[in-house]
Amino acid sequence: MEFRSKVIDIQVGRPSIVLNESDAESTGVRVHDRVKVSFSGQTVIALVETTETYVGRGEIGVFREVKQSLKLKDGDSVSIAHTSPPESLNYIKKKMGGALLSRDEIFSIIEDVVDYNLSDVEIAAFMMSQHFHGMNMDEIEALTRALVETGEIIDFGQTVYDKHSVGGVPGNKVSLLIVPIISASGLLIPKTSSKAITSPSGTADTMGILAPVEFSPQEFKQIALKASGAIVWGGRLGLAPADDVLIKRVEYPLGLDPYSQMLASIMAKKMAVGASCVVIDIPTGRGSKVEDEDEARRSSADFMELGRRLGIRVVCGITYGGQPVGHTVGPVLEAKEALETLMGKGPTSLVEKSTALAGLLLEAAGVAAPKFGHEYAKKVLESGKALEKMRQIIEAQGGNPNVKPEDLQVGQHKISIYSPCDGYVTEVDNSAISAIARIAGAPVDRGAGLVLYGKRGRYVKKDDVILEIYAERSTRLSEAYNLAVQKKPVTIEGMLLHRVPEYT
Amino acid sequence: MEFRSKVIDIQVGRPSIVLNESDAESTGVRVHDRVKVSFSGQTVIALVETTETYVGRGEIGVFREVKQSLKLKDGDSVSIAHTSPPESLNYIKKKMGGALLSRDEIFSIIEDVVDYNLSDVEIAAFMMSQHFHGMNMDEIEALTRALVETGEIIDFGQTVYDKHSVGGVPGNKVSLLIVPIISASGLLIPKTSSKAITSPSGTADTMGILAPVEFSPQEFKQIALKASGAIVWGGRLGLAPADDVLIKRVEYPLGLDPYSQMLASIMAKKMAVGASCVVIDIPTGRGSKVEDEDEARRSSADFMELGRRLGIRVVCGITYGGQPVGHTVGPVLEAKEALETLMGKGPTSLVEKSTALAGLLLEAAGVAAPKFGHEYAKKVLESGKALEKMRQIIEAQGGNPNVKPEDLQVGQHKISIYSPCDGYVTEVDNSAISAIARIAGAPVDRGAGLVLYGKRGRYVKKDDVILEIYAERSTRLSEAYNLAVQKKPVTIEGMLLHRVPEYT
Repeated sequence: MEFRSKVIDIQVGRPSIVLNESDAESTGVRVHDRVKVSFSGQTVIALVETTETYVGRGEIGVFREVKQSLKLKDGDSVSIAHTSPPESLNYIKKKMGGALLSRDEIFSIIEDVVDYNLSDVEIAAFMMSQHFHGMNMDEIEALTRALVETGEIIDFGQTVYDKHSVGGVPGNKVSLLIVPIISASGLLIPKTSSKAITSPSGTADTMGILAPVEFSPQEFKQIALKASGAIVWGGRLGLAPADDVLIKRVEYPLGLDPYSQMLASIMAKKMAVGASCVVIDIPTGRGSKVEDEDEARRSSADFMELGRRLGIRVVCGITYGGQPVGHTVGPVLEAKEALETLMGKGPTSLVEKSTALAGLLLEAAGVAAPKFGHEYAKKVLESGKALEKMRQIIEAQGGNPNVKPEDLQVGQHKISIYSPCDGYVTEVDNSAISAIARIAGAPVDRGAGLVLYGKRGRYVKKDDVILEIYAERSTRLSEAYNLAVQKKPVTIEGMLLHRVPEYT
Repeated sequence: MEFRSKVIDIQVGRPSIVLNESDAESTGVRVHDRVKVSFSGQTVIALVETTETYVGRGEIGVFREVKQSLKLKDGDSVSIAHTSPPESLNYIKKKMGGALLSRDEIFSIIEDVVDYNLSDVEIAAFMMSQHFHGMNMDEIEALTRALVETGEIIDFGQTVYDKHSVGGVPGNKVSLLIVPIISASGLLIPKTSSKAITSPSGTADTMGILAPVEFSPQEFKQIALKASGAIVWGGRLGLAPADDVLIKRVEYPLGLDPYSQMLASIMAKKMAVGASCVVIDIPTGRGSKVEDEDEARRSSADFMELGRRLGIRVVCGITYGGQPVGHTVGPVLEAKEALETLMGKGPTSLVEKSTALAGLLLEAAGVAAPKFGHEYAKKVLESGKALEKMRQIIEAQGGNPNVKPEDLQVGQHKISIYSPCDGYVTEVDNSAISAIARIAGAPVDRGAGLVLYGKRGRYVKKDDVILEIYAERSTRLSEAYNLAVQKKPVTIEGMLLHRVPEYT
């Protein structure tokens, strides 16, 4: 069938065309079908959308990807023909039916994700099938390898150590301590990290306060080798790019995080930088991703088995994730607290967690004797060597190595929330803490966030400050304050939780 | 945040805007997020897409739906603000987690489907959750009512009878016999039907050969009341419109047909025309939707229970669906066979199935005594009254009431396939039959299709014609012939099925 092209110069993420609904009907082409689009000997496979209006009968709207592939201009005579969906769609349907997928089938799906051959709905079906049916370890191994092999792989030419957190806990700035401790102990730790999606600050957002974090793979390699460590944003490195597509198009919109995908995603990012020894932080407790210790132990076993298959030594640390680590939440506030901690003025929970995890890695690397890693890491921190190393890393990434905590600008609008009574803090609600910090503006407003004084187990007196909220904009501050009043993120024994009937 | 509008005059199916990726990042807006878009006191909620190129920084691309709602032109100053996804997305997530949904939650989801407030990925998540977790009868009842109440409801002002098939069998033109038989027996049967999506001909495609089938609800009502029956396309009537969205955007692209949705979809279409008594055809057997009789009995029980709750009397007929009904497949060929059968020259399988199902409805209506419906229906058919009634229906719909089978133009290109040996036909493959007819051009090429002579159980001799393929285009004919040679849709006892190694 021949159509006149009408260029629609928008990038839609994958080769797509739009037909008039009457033409689509009379040619038997449907929304989300694939067609072969040909012009002067060139062919591209495109997904079909339909319209009642914008494109007339006999016309084909070609979006930028198709326009560029075929070098089209308005009015060119383009032919289209039916074509089958990619073979990988059959494998997705197979997984929908609960079958196990082979290595080649999983590679085919991931290749088509990277090449934009699958629609969002098809990718969603794959992720939902993982969510419902799970994957066995053979499938997870294949998925991990497929994620790695369809992206950049960086070879540092020497032994690479790494750490990663399963996530879910606000204020978890431990990487800003672990990386310099490990590096100061003589090991190479080129850490890639992510920006916040649903949290108030990702490690890349927090590190971004102290130094640039966006680099090419080549720059990343140079920096990490120079400073024997780095903390950069993974988003522009092209490591496991399929994972980014899956997160952006499906996991984030649906709040979906299939267990098998989580394992594969984390281990793929480690494998892509050639890590040979990795510590995985598994925060556990109410309001974190892993609710209880049994589940955390199962996850640990799976991480270790997957690591064994991939040739990566994995040590897992099951940590307490029931409330924020340290006191601060939000990019600037967290960077400040991390820097203060490197300078010897940090809160115990942050020092203990960072040095415990760093210690596991030092033991696994043979730098510290078994059971002495924690102590070793603490000494490195206390000696000031970790701080010195962090300043080298900041400099290598192009930041100011002499940065002081007081240089970092927190939001100028601030409000405090006071304890309504004397008593012990019995409960801190992670998700309320995250929501309040985000409404205050974090991570986009980098100085926004909160400081939590009323952590679980503390004894507070009536009118003690239990929470400070910071914002860059006063409207955001009052929205965050209202949310805090409504959500009551900190529970104090004896506190009146609700009045019934509610105030109206 | 303020942006300059850039109109993109394309209808994309739901309110959508596109932002430059840098703007999206700095404002914390992500792909598939919702934003409130405001201009001169008017506000609309839109889904976000992002682009690296087409829309510059400070610009907002507004697609037609948003352009029209806010009456925008290029360069208008538009503000956007974060907003939460619709409440119904939480219910979808609840269903993803396996929970039961309340009536109100299901209504909320279906209302948002109809109002285009949910993205394709979110709708896919709802359908996949139905597929994996199923729904209990309370949920299915709520789903059915929600489908009905969010669309047109037609009140015929008198008792309405109806029939429907669960589908899956090629050549199932029984509605073209059942409707006139029921109508000629004095009952009102305003049948809505669908066009083919994956099959070679839907009932609306087949009826479309004899008369127009596209009407407004008002016209449909007039026609049905005038002729005491009708067979029209449901696609333009606005009955249960959410169902059409679900099929178009998710079920068809993924080949997904959740059981709960199937029940609700069928019963909603019946309820929307006010049917009080319905016969449901459940074709059963290898290669049809319902594989065995146990499953067919369970489906029957569910249809009856759902009917009871909705105030519709349901009778189910479990029929043999292992091969095509009658001989023909494809719009013209099927219309021709149906007309010949009304004229007393039809194949036994088509006569028996049509009159058996019509009989069940006549018994339920009290027109025929229990167990005598089949005989009653046969008499109506043999008497010529059904033919006479069909001619009235054709005329009422604007077709030629005097149409003769030989007036109907089958495809001018034809090829026969012969039996390779003497023997009994032991197997007919429904999906191969459908695929061959579709490759031949059906239903778009209305004269394309096939005639199956070698039905299961027949004794055929070497060189007997077992299959004739018709096409309107010679290229299609040879493609269909090649597929037939490859798929061997008819198996004859003693026939060599494969040569090993294959010919190369």
